Amino acid sequence: MTSEGPPRAGTSGGGAPITRSLTARRIAELTGGQLRGDPDALVSTVAPIERASADAVTFLASARYAPALATCGAAVVLVSPGLVDVPGKATRIVVKNPHEAMLSVLPHLYAAPPRQAGIDPTVRLGRGVQLGADVQVGAYAVLGDGVVLGDRASVGAHSVVGDGVRLGDDTQLFPHVTVYPGTTIGARVIVHAGVRLGSDGFGYVPGASGHRKIPHVGRCLVQDDVEIGANSTIDRGSIDDTVIGAGTKIDNLVQIGHNVRIGRLCLLMAQVGIAGSTRVGDGCVLAGQVGVAGHVTIGDGARVAAQGGVFGDIPSGETWSGYPARPHREALRAQAALFKLSGMIKRLDRLVGGDE
Amino acid sequence: MTSEGPPRAGTSGGGAPITRSLTARRIAELTGGQLRGDPDALVSTVAPIERASADAVTFLASARYAPALATCGAAVVLVSPGLVDVPGKATRIVVKNPHEAMLSVLPHLYAAPPRQAGIDPTVRLGRGVQLGADVQVGAYAVLGDGVVLGDRASVGAHSVVGDGVRLGDDTQLFPHVTVYPGTTIGARVIVHAGVRLGSDGFGYVPGASGHRKIPHVGRCLVQDDVEIGANSTIDRGSIDDTVIGAGTKIDNLVQIGHNVRIGRLCLLMAQVGIAGSTRVGDGCVLAGQVGVAGHVTIGDGARVAAQGGVFGDIPSGETWSGYPARPHREALRAQAALFKLSGMIKRLDRLVGGDE
Amino acid sequence: MTSEGPPRAGTSGGGAPITRSLTARRIAELTGGQLRGDPDALVSTVAPIERASADAVTFLASARYAPALATCGAAVVLVSPGLVDVPGKATRIVVKNPHEAMLSVLPHLYAAPPRQAGIDPTVRLGRGVQLGADVQVGAYAVLGDGVVLGDRASVGAHSVVGDGVRLGDDTQLFPHVTVYPGTTIGARVIVHAGVRLGSDGFGYVPGASGHRKIPHVGRCLVQDDVEIGANSTIDRGSIDDTVIGAGTKIDNLVQIGHNVRIGRLCLLMAQVGIAGSTRVGDGCVLAGQVGVAGHVTIGDGARVAAQGGVFGDIPSGETWSGYPARPHREALRAQAALFKLSGMIKRLDRLVGGDE
Repeated sequence: MTSEGPPRAGTSGGGAPITRSLTARRIAELTGGQLRGDPDALVSTVAPIERASADAVTFLASARYAPALATCGAAVVLVSPGLVDVPGKATRIVVKNPHEAMLSVLPHLYAAPPRQAGIDPTVRLGRGVQLGADVQVGAYAVLGDGVVLGDRASVGAHSVVGDGVRLGDDTQLFPHVTVYPGTTIGARVIVHAGVRLGSDGFGYVPGASGHRKIPHVGRCLVQDDVEIGANSTIDRGSIDDTVIGAGTKIDNLVQIGHNVRIGRLCLLMAQVGIAGSTRVGDGCVLAGQVGVAGHVTIGDGARVAAQGGVFGDIPSGETWSGYPARPHREALRAQAALFKLSGMIKRLDRLVGGDE
Repeated sequence: MTSEGPPRAGTSGGGAPITRSLTARRIAELTGGQLRGDPDALVSTVAPIERASADAVTFLASARYAPALATCGAAVVLVSPGLVDVPGKATRIVVKNPHEAMLSVLPHLYAAPPRQAGIDPTVRLGRGVQLGADVQVGAYAVLGDGVVLGDRASVGAHSVVGDGVRLGDDTQLFPHVTVYPGTTIGARVIVHAGVRLGSDGFGYVPGASGHRKIPHVGRCLVQDDVEIGANSTIDRGSIDDTVIGAGTKIDNLVQIGHNVRIGRLCLLMAQVGIAGSTRVGDGCVLAGQVGVAGHVTIGDGARVAAQGGVFGDIPSGETWSGYPARPHREALRAQAALFKLSGMIKRLDRLVGGDE
Repeated sequence: MTSEGPPRAGTSGGGAPITRSLTARRIAELTGGQLRGDPDALVSTVAPIERASADAVTFLASARYAPALATCGAAVVLVSPGLVDVPGKATRIVVKNPHEAMLSVLPHLYAAPPRQAGIDPTVRLGRGVQLGADVQVGAYAVLGDGVVLGDRASVGAHSVVGDGVRLGDDTQLFPHVTVYPGTTIGARVIVHAGVRLGSDGFGYVPGASGHRKIPHVGRCLVQDDVEIGANSTIDRGSIDDTVIGAGTKIDNLVQIGHNVRIGRLCLLMAQVGIAGSTRVGDGCVLAGQVGVAGHVTIGDGARVAAQGGVFGDIPSGETWSGYPARPHREALRAQAALFKLSGMIKRLDRLVGGDE
């Protein structure tokens, strides 16, 4: 543990974060909050209210967890204004939104390990590779011919970056990422371990002697500020491109098929699957395990609840759910009706009799 | 860009494809199509009709996209006979099936990079490895004892091939593939990045001191002409074998459990999961996110719609859907009834009264 | 093939198993079964009854497969007491539970290859790495600063173990595993190829300029005797920890979100997804493709059927199914009602008329 220094880029890097300590006074400054209690209370970790120890800062944003504060040993608690008088001995810092306030505190408490720019001696560099300033390439990484890394880009140990691939400034590949040729990645993109970008899509033409493979000559384009979770897969286009819009965040084990175009600022949760040539607008949210059929259009700001199965277009701004997905209100009404009906089935049967 | 040479094997290789240029006359020859317009119109890329530039060949197979041809800048368009008179300035080549015709053009437009046979000096070879003619093994790949590679087989950078594994002629592993011992792969198989073949299945015997692991001593057998998408997993058998039939194509993030037997020429789309000991016949199609329970038999030519949950046998040739999966027509009828009923629930309730 | 020696640890290791041979007499001893037939019948493999050759031991536990014994060529069959008189020429060994008895035989028939302790010369070791006795680290593996390996721990070829990670005694990582910093793995844990442990969870705070990433400073804790299937992903906690309880077994392609706590001795089947901060009790079974929403509590011993979508708490000991998941009996009744109702929809419609 060291005393506080300038904040670093984050804690998602390859190394272990370095823990620092902060006073309640400093936390109040960082969050713009109002201090109530000991300004010298010292913390060096963060923890949820039910597991916080004496060196922790915690937060309380909901009356549901208020009773836990009485027995909580945390030195400092970030509380929303309505909960400031909840019993408990922790020094309080009153802030409008404790979750958001925590975002201002965390980078000061957990500093990223010092960045070690440089190319590991075991790295394989192809012909004509262009390296920006302060790039970092980990052990055994393989960079193909003509690869371009932007300034401060990093490639994790064991990642394989295909011929001609470009990574923008400050983009980070974790270990074990595969980037096929024909892929371009923007700036400030985070790609987690085991992600596969630009693999061939699933396209065959049926024939007498079996399924003939359709060559995939389109690209896989990942725009700025995207994050892609572990073991997700994004196919390249067949003759068109696959595009992931700027600021979109993709969770683990997500599959995105060939020629799909995802807009800006979308959230795609774990295990979502999107079939080929589908268009997803800006600001959409697809919850976990949602499946979307091919050649479908999902409008801007639309949302699909977990496990929804989308087989047709969804208008902008609507929330859909269920299988096959329908507007959420309709789907709920149908679910309710089903359970209601199963309770009156015998009487209905008596009323109208057998099958037709 | 180079002038046209002999076609190569495809564009899925490890390197970036080399673009060539073609005249409209040559495209007409390659597709057996009828030329209408400038025979010297030159193209060096392919693109969908709404994004085609002046150096592109595009295609028009459906009246729905016909208006786009008027403003499309493509030099050449492959059109189906019924659409030949759609307005637009591109040189036309009339073919029965524009999608299929494109398959004849693509390998001439995008040549695979020249194949670099050879074993990278960083490759680890076990004892008794047998290498066919012109094999290619990428940087840092690890081949265990007794591995056999067929002629022209290739193993991507960083792949790990376990003891005793055999790869047939022309089989290609992309980077980061793991092949456990006990796996055999046929000829002309394509295995994408991050695939795991022959891992232990999920089998335990419950006991007083916890779940006891069942040793997995069966094999994982992948027959000729199979393609397996990125990050898919196929377990080895427990005491039987897991078998993937010839010509079957498997998409990304698919899971195939121990002792499963998949027939020939099946299509398994992304995120499908098949539980242990299930049998899938020849020519079956399982759409995205379908789940199949263990010890089930799916007959030849059967199809299951996306997200279907299969808990029992499916007869040959039938199409099923829904949860639990039923014959598609029944499932559709039930869905329609549900939404109809939710509209009359109040009146039904009034008619027969509360629960029973 | 060698004559029988002392049993080894299992057959899931990196090498190919070594086959031995056993007499019927020895199998009877190992299983505590009653021998009927030739005590010198010799076997060197195990196989299912419909595919057993003359050098195989097979088993018969269900009357359904009894007819197959007549034509089965196996030298020896393990039979349950009720099936001992089924026709067939194989030497019988009568045991209470043929499946369990097989567990006593397999380690003697298939010995694990001799374990080669040692650190491959290509391994990259960080500063301050601590290695237990007889550890094994495969080619090109990367161990970060301060990594601790317990006695007989093994790290497969190409695995990347982040700074400060600890592996307990006898824990085994297969090839291509990524362990992020902030992860701790107990003793006797098996981690299959392509697993990602401790990656950042999916957490963002929406803002005017896009989704702001929540730093993840919690840990990923995997307790003793856990097994994790190929390509599964387990996120680290955000400010809390993600915990996988002792003896829990996780299948392939499973996703576990940040701050999730899974109890002891659970079974999570393939493609299950659990969203953030959910609690799963001890001894729970989640079948294939089940999805569980965030912040939900699943009680001890609860079970969810395949593809179930869990959006609320499940009491201990209950079995739920369907979407949204309900107690299994209710869900079945609703499904049955639906198909019944779709058969009487026209008459109901006539009775109460259109929509309301």
